[in-house]
Amino acid sequence: MAAEFEIIARYFAPIAGAAGLGLLDDAALVQPPAGHDLVITTDALCAGVHFFLDDPAETIGHKALGVNLSDLAAKGAKPLGFVLSLILPSDIQEEWIANFAKGIELLAANTDCPLIGGDTVYSNGPLSISITAFGSVPQGTMVKRGTAQAGDKLFVTGTIGDAALGLLQHSAKREGRSLQLSTDYSASLIERYLRPRPRNTVAPVLRDYARAAMDISDGFIGDLTKLVSLAGLGANVWLNDVPYSVAARAAFRADAGLIETALTGGDDYELLAAVPSQHAKAFIAGCLKFGVTATQVGEITEACQSIRFLESDGKQRHFSSPSYVHGDG
Amino acid sequence: MAAEFEIIARYFAPIAGAAGLGLLDDAALVQPPAGHDLVITTDALCAGVHFFLDDPAETIGHKALGVNLSDLAAKGAKPLGFVLSLILPSDIQEEWIANFAKGIELLAANTDCPLIGGDTVYSNGPLSISITAFGSVPQGTMVKRGTAQAGDKLFVTGTIGDAALGLLQHSAKREGRSLQLSTDYSASLIERYLRPRPRNTVAPVLRDYARAAMDISDGFIGDLTKLVSLAGLGANVWLNDVPYSVAARAAFRADAGLIETALTGGDDYELLAAVPSQHAKAFIAGCLKFGVTATQVGEITEACQSIRFLESDGKQRHFSSPSYVHGDG
Repeated sequence: MAAEFEIIARYFAPIAGAAGLGLLDDAALVQPPAGHDLVITTDALCAGVHFFLDDPAETIGHKALGVNLSDLAAKGAKPLGFVLSLILPSDIQEEWIANFAKGIELLAANTDCPLIGGDTVYSNGPLSISITAFGSVPQGTMVKRGTAQAGDKLFVTGTIGDAALGLLQHSAKREGRSLQLSTDYSASLIERYLRPRPRNTVAPVLRDYARAAMDISDGFIGDLTKLVSLAGLGANVWLNDVPYSVAARAAFRADAGLIETALTGGDDYELLAAVPSQHAKAFIAGCLKFGVTATQVGEITEACQSIRFLESDGKQRHFSSPSYVHGDG
Repeated sequence: MAAEFEIIARYFAPIAGAAGLGLLDDAALVQPPAGHDLVITTDALCAGVHFFLDDPAETIGHKALGVNLSDLAAKGAKPLGFVLSLILPSDIQEEWIANFAKGIELLAANTDCPLIGGDTVYSNGPLSISITAFGSVPQGTMVKRGTAQAGDKLFVTGTIGDAALGLLQHSAKREGRSLQLSTDYSASLIERYLRPRPRNTVAPVLRDYARAAMDISDGFIGDLTKLVSLAGLGANVWLNDVPYSVAARAAFRADAGLIETALTGGDDYELLAAVPSQHAKAFIAGCLKFGVTATQVGEITEACQSIRFLESDGKQRHFSSPSYVHGDG
């Protein structure tokens, strides 16, 4: 086991941005662009809770940064950089650290979000990773979570439920159980679970057109409920319009009960946005320009605290456990 | 065990600053003062490594924030706020959380450094805390670590070694071993270990007069070596001039070997600064204005990588283990 300083120097200093001062100082130095606000988000991931320690280390690095980037995307912010706290079990292999750093580096480079600082601790506990990420928005333009208004259309990006179904497939595979899906479908769902795709490209589209937004990390139903409730409003949500991938639809054909898993499971890292109706078309077109599909799934209503999830026959559906709980709470 | 959201709402939302948006959004929103740079630091603390889980929870909260504030102080930065990642064992008592929050709140209020965001995860591992703190400096004035020049005088604030001696006393007390010191001395050393006093008041004095600085967290000898080496220079350090508290001197009388513990042990959270000689008097006077003693302990020399620790008789002393290692590395 190399000393902390050597590990940082070998694997992390090369991927650090200029603001990180080579990771040799006590602090990072950031100059937010003039006339911009700074957006800050923090997320911790724990082995056995948010990932399996035997997942490829590179995907764990990707995911740890990705979930933070997703929060920046939801706020309409452009990434500036991030700091990394690593709590490592004392028997961790250096190869693990190298691969973890590789996963982080690739996503950091793709999103222009350099590492600028960190801390490493060895303990006798499970591996955990805490990242704080920074972004900027032109002053006063951060997209908030609780500011939706009645009449706004509710949109989601991409497809819902792939990661939750991927987790089921991943667990089955790890335990040697047989998969109910073709290898291709199974692999694509597992990939969505292991390697979330934060929607940072459409952050400017959110800033231009969305009145409120958040990322979907704890399940579509639960997160939508949070966004609507925080505004003190209600919503009608058309479950039949929720966008699913081909692989997810194949999973539903094998087991219809999985629709509930898709709607309430975590780790989507898609965006949920409330968009004034006059901007709906521009919002869809803006997202498409970046190759991202935005689908309307409902609308905000005046009906305080009444969120109706409607089936195609108009019947209301109730969810006993609307959010995925990562062993939290 | 209350759900994450309730715990945040009950104990942390009331202590959150305006930038934290009530801890109800995905992100915090910070507007750094115009013409200022943002200084960012992050430190993780782990039960069994940096503190004992049966330490008073209020002191653990104080320490977790304090070690980050100390880094901001060393950079000459004024605190702006912090985000908190908590990884809690699933059987944690609510009372622990309440007291932990109280410890954080008090220090946050005293240093004008509000909580602005966070994440809480329950796991089967040891409790760990990761804090990322933000500060600001007028553009271009952050005090760096590696910028000392030959001829600069080396200063430390306060007294050295109290926390390392306090840890010995604390461990003896926990294990029911008899203490070699009077109860008063022992208590004052333990207090220094449990409740570090970050030197944020003198941050502007560092900005005005210091050419390089860092906080002393891993031991005086080791940290001084880092500061000097990073500048590619050497130093003469007069061990006889290192400032000790009355309690530390009493401990040395009982066991002269403890001087080495004091010089190399961690958790001082004092500041080490390289000050151009023409500013030395103003630096001392500036610190004193805030009630902080600054003591010259050496000077930077041209002699590349040669750091000489000198006894009062002029003999050079060597340290086999110059830094305290928190089970890290």
